[in-house]
Order: sequence, then structure tokens, then C-alpha cells
Amino acid sequence: MPAVPYTPRDGQYVATAEFYVRYAETDAQGIVHHSSYVLWMEEARLNFARSVGIDYAETERAGRLMSIVEMQVHYHSAMRFGDKVRAHCWLDSFKSRAMTFAYHIQREGDGVVCMSGASRHVCLNREGNIASWPESWR
Amino acid sequence: MPAVPYTPRDGQYVATAEFYVRYAETDAQGIVHHSSYVLWMEEARLNFARSVGIDYAETERAGRLMSIVEMQVHYHSAMRFGDKVRAHCWLDSFKSRAMTFAYHIQREGDGVVCMSGASRHVCLNREGNIASWPESWR
Amino acid sequence: MPAVPYTPRDGQYVATAEFYVRYAETDAQGIVHHSSYVLWMEEARLNFARSVGIDYAETERAGRLMSIVEMQVHYHSAMRFGDKVRAHCWLDSFKSRAMTFAYHIQREGDGVVCMSGASRHVCLNREGNIASWPESWR
Amino acid sequence: MPAVPYTPRDGQYVATAEFYVRYAETDAQGIVHHSSYVLWMEEARLNFARSVGIDYAETERAGRLMSIVEMQVHYHSAMRFGDKVRAHCWLDSFKSRAMTFAYHIQREGDGVVCMSGASRHVCLNREGNIASWPESWR
Repeated sequence: MPAVPYTPRDGQYVATAEFYVRYAETDAQGIVHHSSYVLWMEEARLNFARSVGIDYAETERAGRLMSIVEMQVHYHSAMRFGDKVRAHCWLDSFKSRAMTFAYHIQREGDGVVCMSGASRHVCLNREGNIASWPESWR
Repeated sequence: MPAVPYTPRDGQYVATAEFYVRYAETDAQGIVHHSSYVLWMEEARLNFARSVGIDYAETERAGRLMSIVEMQVHYHSAMRFGDKVRAHCWLDSFKSRAMTFAYHIQREGDGVVCMSGASRHVCLNREGNIASWPESWR
Repeated sequence: MPAVPYTPRDGQYVATAEFYVRYAETDAQGIVHHSSYVLWMEEARLNFARSVGIDYAETERAGRLMSIVEMQVHYHSAMRFGDKVRAHCWLDSFKSRAMTFAYHIQREGDGVVCMSGASRHVCLNREGNIASWPESWR
Repeated sequence: MPAVPYTPRDGQYVATAEFYVRYAETDAQGIVHHSSYVLWMEEARLNFARSVGIDYAETERAGRLMSIVEMQVHYHSAMRFGDKVRAHCWLDSFKSRAMTFAYHIQREGDGVVCMSGASRHVCLNREGNIASWPESWR
């Protein structure tokens, strides 16, 4: 397998969520459907937020929304029902008006990174205009 | 096959939505996952609303929400990717504070009713309290 | 709130899976979409299997499939993003050719049972015919 | 709005699927969840196949699978429940061992392209090895 893209830098904080593949996340090819990984990226990102003390539900109630503007996903190996997932997420870049997260979706057991990817987000206020991130996020 | 439950009464208005099974709606058994039918019941119900001139998005903006309180689903035959779906929905009962819809999910071609079921709904206002249905729905 | 249906019998084994509401599981009403609970029922059921030592992925490879034939779902209270879910599942009845599981979906914190329900399943062989459950399941 | 990426070449065949946003496809921000567009890309791609006479279900039965290896998604504008979707798909490149599709997800009415993107696929045989596309696809 070629080197996996989107590798965290040395010493970078990486948050990891662990869960089992859900049966509903598979498809008729007998493997996990490619859209399920997009759900796991989000789960990994929100787990990252929880793990650094950000309550995203509270952030939204306070009128700041994270809005996705771009996403890249690379599929390296198929996962199956019965597999346990390790969903890694880290902050790849943080600017005043945009944030990029990167992801590795890894299969527990053989440790293969089955998916790697990244997503870029901006902060919106209630009116849908681009705003700066909440103070507490810095 | 035994008689299918939830049959519309003679002369009752039945709205039908037609669409193809999506690949993402299948699972590793090679068939449509049972949760996909729940999405189709909702699609059939909202298609019913559209077909009788109700703009449900507008209803929500005006502060009235349909909230599901109960659902029964009977699975009769498996559907597969490639099948075309005919999702039938009709109003089974309408009371001041609750409405019941019934459903047949039918496979085009052989005409088999693969799922039948019903769902009961109440109307909520913005505060989450039970309210009466909008005037225009009567 | 009325008494919640589908209560486990005294001393009955109940398996509990714990996880956070996923953002994707919410809808435009700001609450968890009713179809998400159906995914959680399945997750609770497969967690039950894991907790009693059944490897369902292996069961399928050996040519026995659990097929759902009926489902009842009662919605008692809305859940939201930020809530932690406790998904309880127990075996309500076990016969040679059909099994019924029951479920409570509970919100951690206030402990409210937000959904209760049941699902009935039969065992199919590779040809799609009803078979008896694997020996090891008894 | 900046120019939308992934524009079809002059005279290129573009297949369009039309459907309404499903309520379940929205999230607590009141808009369509970003993962729903991934489902629509697939629907658009399979609609493309149907429209050029390819029966993808039959292709899989014959032992050839399309497997996604990479996906890019750009989100330009939020869609909502009530919107009607026009999901455009075209073949961006076709090589012996890989195919790239591109997509525009457009809102009917104002005609805004709310999402644009691309996905790259390879053909696998039953053993999971890379194979060439079926003859009939050329």
C-alpha cells in the first residue's frame, strides 16, 4: 500500500473515537458503504471537540455554527461488519476564518488505515454570515 | 403470503411516490436495510402532503411541527438494488390531536407489497406542546 | 408520562450500549430524527449478541441470517445532539423459529426513556428459507 | 459566488436525476446534512448509468463491482427541506482501470449549484482485485 495521505505532524494532538461498524452502515457489496466514513469523520471531529473541552451543542445554542465548505476522502481498504473502528482526528490548520481537520479511519486488529481525508470548515453566525470562532476555541 | 395488513378503504385517496432503491439503502445481506423503509414511509407521507396541497416546510416555518409518537412496520419480502419502489400512503384516521397514516411499500414489476405499516403523529407548537392541526389541513 | 411499554422482567439480562448522539442523526426540528432510533435498536441488539458471546458476522459467514419481520416503536421524549444514549436491549421471547427483542432508549443524565419498542426476527438460510437458529444460540 | 469547479465540457452528456430533499436528510442546523450530498452523488452516478443503458445491479451479479477510491466535495450553498434537487452527473474521464465522475447538485428554482464534486472509481472482480470494466461499458 502506498503511504497514506494526511499524516499528523510529530507531537500533534490526535483524538480517537472507538466504536463498532453498524450493520446499517454496510451495503450490498458486503462492505461498509463509502458514505458511512463521512459520518465517522464527523463523529471523529466532534469527539475531538469533546476531548479538548468544547461543548459543540452549547456553541450552536450560543449562535455559532461550524459549516463545512470542502471535503476530500481517500479510500484505501474496505471495512466490514464486525470490524472495530478507531477514528482519529486532528486539527490540521486553524485560521481566523477557517479550520481544517484531518482524519485517519483505522481498523483495530491489523491496524490498517482504511480511509484518510480532510475537511475545511468556516464559522457562521445565526444570519448565515461568516464570523470568527468563539473566543474559547483559540 | 398472508393478507397484507393496513389496507386502504374503498375509495380512499392514496398518494404514491415512485423512486429507485438507492445503493446506500442496501446492507451486507444484499437486500434493502430495514431502516430504509422508515425513510420511505416518511417520503411517502410528505409526498401525500404535497399531493393534497400542503407545504410542510411552510407549516414548520409557521410554528407547527408533526411529531411521530408511534410506528408499526411489517416486513413481507426483501427488496434489492435495481428495484423500483412504489411508496403508497393514505390517511387512516384524523382526530383533532392525532393523525394516523398507513403505508404500503410495493415493488414495481411483480407488484408485491414488501412492507406495510402505520405511524401516528401529533401536532406540536414551537414550545413543544401539543396543539391542534393548522386550519388549512382539515 | 405514562408507564413505558416493554419493561424487562425481574432478573432478566439486559445489555446496554452507550454512545453519543451523532450530529447527522438530528433533523431540521433540532431533535434526533425518528429513523435514528431504528439504527440504535439494531446497535443495541448486536451489542446484546456481542455481550452474550455471539459473533454475528461469523454467523452470517456460516450461512444463517437474522431477518426482521416486524417492529413497533414508541416515541416518548425527544433527544438532541449533545445527549448521551444508553441503548438497552433484552430477549423478550425465544422460539424455535422466531425471536423477539425489546428495547429502551434512555437519555443519560435525567434517565428518561425516550423510546421503547420491540422487533421480531426469524432465521434464514442462504436460500432465503426459514431455518432454525444456530445451535450455539440456545 | 466564485465560479463553480467541475464544469462539464461543451457538448458533454450530462444525466440529471430529480427528487425532493427528504426530511431525514436535514440536520439540527435546519439545512441538509453534508453527508446527504454524498448519497445524492451516488444516486446521480447510478442514474447516469441507467440513462446510458447500464444495469448496474446486473453488472454486480456478473461479478464486476465499482469501487470508489477518492472523492472531493465542495459545498457552495445550503439546501433545505422543501427544495427540489437536480443532481447532475457526467463522466469526466474514462481509463482502462479508473473512471472519474463529476457532479453538480443544483437547487431547482433559483438554479444555484449548491455542491460540486468528483469521485474516482476502479473496477473490482469478485476476489477484490482490480479488473477492467465490462465490455459493454466502453
